[in-house]
Amino acid sequence: MVGTFTVVARDTESSARAAELITAHGTVRTPAFMPVGTAGSVKGLAPWELVQLGPEMVLANTYHLLLRPGVEVIESLGGLHAFMGWPGPILTDSGGFQVYSLAARRRYDDDGVTFRSHLDGAELRLSPEGCVEAQRRLGVDVAMALDVCPPLPSPPGELERAVALTSAWARRCRAALPAGGSTLLFGIVQGGLDVELRRRAVEELLPLGFDGYALGGFSVGEEQPALWEGVAAAAPLLPADRPRYLMGVGTPADLVHGVACGVDLFDCVIPTRNARNGLLHTSCGPRVVKHARWRTAGEPPDPQCDCPTCRSCSMAYLRHLYLARDAAAVVLATVHNLHFYLALMRRLRWAIINGRFLQLRRELPWARADG
Amino acid sequence: MVGTFTVVARDTESSARAAELITAHGTVRTPAFMPVGTAGSVKGLAPWELVQLGPEMVLANTYHLLLRPGVEVIESLGGLHAFMGWPGPILTDSGGFQVYSLAARRRYDDDGVTFRSHLDGAELRLSPEGCVEAQRRLGVDVAMALDVCPPLPSPPGELERAVALTSAWARRCRAALPAGGSTLLFGIVQGGLDVELRRRAVEELLPLGFDGYALGGFSVGEEQPALWEGVAAAAPLLPADRPRYLMGVGTPADLVHGVACGVDLFDCVIPTRNARNGLLHTSCGPRVVKHARWRTAGEPPDPQCDCPTCRSCSMAYLRHLYLARDAAAVVLATVHNLHFYLALMRRLRWAIINGRFLQLRRELPWARADG
Repeated sequence: MVGTFTVVARDTESSARAAELITAHGTVRTPAFMPVGTAGSVKGLAPWELVQLGPEMVLANTYHLLLRPGVEVIESLGGLHAFMGWPGPILTDSGGFQVYSLAARRRYDDDGVTFRSHLDGAELRLSPEGCVEAQRRLGVDVAMALDVCPPLPSPPGELERAVALTSAWARRCRAALPAGGSTLLFGIVQGGLDVELRRRAVEELLPLGFDGYALGGFSVGEEQPALWEGVAAAAPLLPADRPRYLMGVGTPADLVHGVACGVDLFDCVIPTRNARNGLLHTSCGPRVVKHARWRTAGEPPDPQCDCPTCRSCSMAYLRHLYLARDAAAVVLATVHNLHFYLALMRRLRWAIINGRFLQLRRELPWARADG
Repeated sequence: MVGTFTVVARDTESSARAAELITAHGTVRTPAFMPVGTAGSVKGLAPWELVQLGPEMVLANTYHLLLRPGVEVIESLGGLHAFMGWPGPILTDSGGFQVYSLAARRRYDDDGVTFRSHLDGAELRLSPEGCVEAQRRLGVDVAMALDVCPPLPSPPGELERAVALTSAWARRCRAALPAGGSTLLFGIVQGGLDVELRRRAVEELLPLGFDGYALGGFSVGEEQPALWEGVAAAAPLLPADRPRYLMGVGTPADLVHGVACGVDLFDCVIPTRNARNGLLHTSCGPRVVKHARWRTAGEPPDPQCDCPTCRSCSMAYLRHLYLARDAAAVVLATVHNLHFYLALMRRLRWAIINGRFLQLRRELPWARADG
């Protein structure tokens, strides 16, 4: 049944768990990383490339799709799945984060937020009801409640106001999209690095009965130690019987840490954005493609990787394509980085189910904190 | 045996023919269009995309590869096939055209041409022997002799000098790469729109015994009627028992005309360059992707096409990706345009073999001259 969440295995030495979430477009096996398909595409990937990579769920951004091409266009074309040629589960961010990070001249009030498009300056408005309605019309599997997402550091008062408004909007979002339909709705917990504030936020959301709970407001300016500590403190506040989603995080090491804290879902632009900028994530750590050391390197980008990129080209060739500014470089690096992230999550899930999570963590040298 | 060229069918109402050329990396079934992989990649395509498209032969540019990454780098990595992850036949242009069209401060002498790189201004030199040696070291299947390729219109004296130098260089190229090895060598016929000059060029090349003969110096500034007339006059001058290659041409209609004139091989940047600029070649004629008429168009780019792009996305989605400047747009359009060109050539070959070439030409409304 859509919305059913089943924990299939628990690690005994950490809070890590393997689970399944049933959505209208398939079952999401967690822990899972969602590639970011901002405007209805994972940048650089043709639809068939994404399908071949086989992510459990893909994220798209309500904010970007509202601006271009518009919800009505996507709806008229049969919804977001048909539009982007992705048949599996889709989760959309509510736009709360983008309004804070991209849009200009934000004005928050009890009923929503007014802002200007970062594309053309047009004035737009998101209300809790409008935001949820847009996601429902897009036909996504998981909608996110509208939130206020302040950066870190922010004054305590601003974090408190963000939580208060997010809670008030959460109630209205839930009312606009009642439980039991085919679109699941996740609530978002704000509160920055203040554990008591996060606890209060969770307490305000719990009675609303969301299908899942997300930690927002991380990776918004804090250093990695603060992020890791914050996640370790906040994740246990979320109910254990619903999916936990850590929004916008992070590096491969951040994911391993998050999984150990009991997080089920992640999304982040790091693998795709880094790919466009020529940074590869590999089993040997990060590699800068343009580095002169790769000029005559016949080895694949990651000797331990079996992705299509590593099976078909050398570091020297990939470097050559970057220097030639060939769009194929973006494709190749994006495929590799996403494969690395997705393969990592599959390994973590396998390890949890087989009681080897701690052992796997020890085998990943880069999985320790950067600091 | 490498170099064997067999005509398998002839059209009775035109000079069109279907043939096979055996190369060290496979048999090229003609008429065939070679996608342009300028610097060792068909721009925007991952190696596996190119393999899936299945061209008979791919073209790369000696000029670009000399400049970057350098012949010694590719040689050290096992040759151009291994470098670019393309296991099939490769033909390299000699660089004659690029020296004329891209490089700065050209100085021709009897022994070669000195010029400055369009990338960094470095002074470089191509001699007939050096050019052939570079192609041999790249490990390509078909090398082209070094030529002088003046634009049109050019003064008669310049065209004559181009032919004289091209003939002299052709002799030195053939001497540097004798027949019988695994690298085939094609001679290039220049002469602009002057049929007598072209005839003289052919007479000078024939005794050298090239593995194939190319018409250079077309699509270098002349209008389509002059191109068509020139090709119709020049193609019959080439020996019938060797492959005929029309360099740098052209539109789908140009290809159909060329095939009717007895040309076997073509290459052109049109399908790939147009793809990057958002122009699609379709069975309904050219389509400009960004046009507002496609804003809500659920139809595929070409309703009669079964390429991966047309099977996975709508015109509205492709337009959206162009407006969002997503590299996936380039991938999708490049795959479609190349598929269109390659499918056209397969259809033409099939029609020639089955005695239906004239009928097929009549069925392609866009195959008439543009003018």
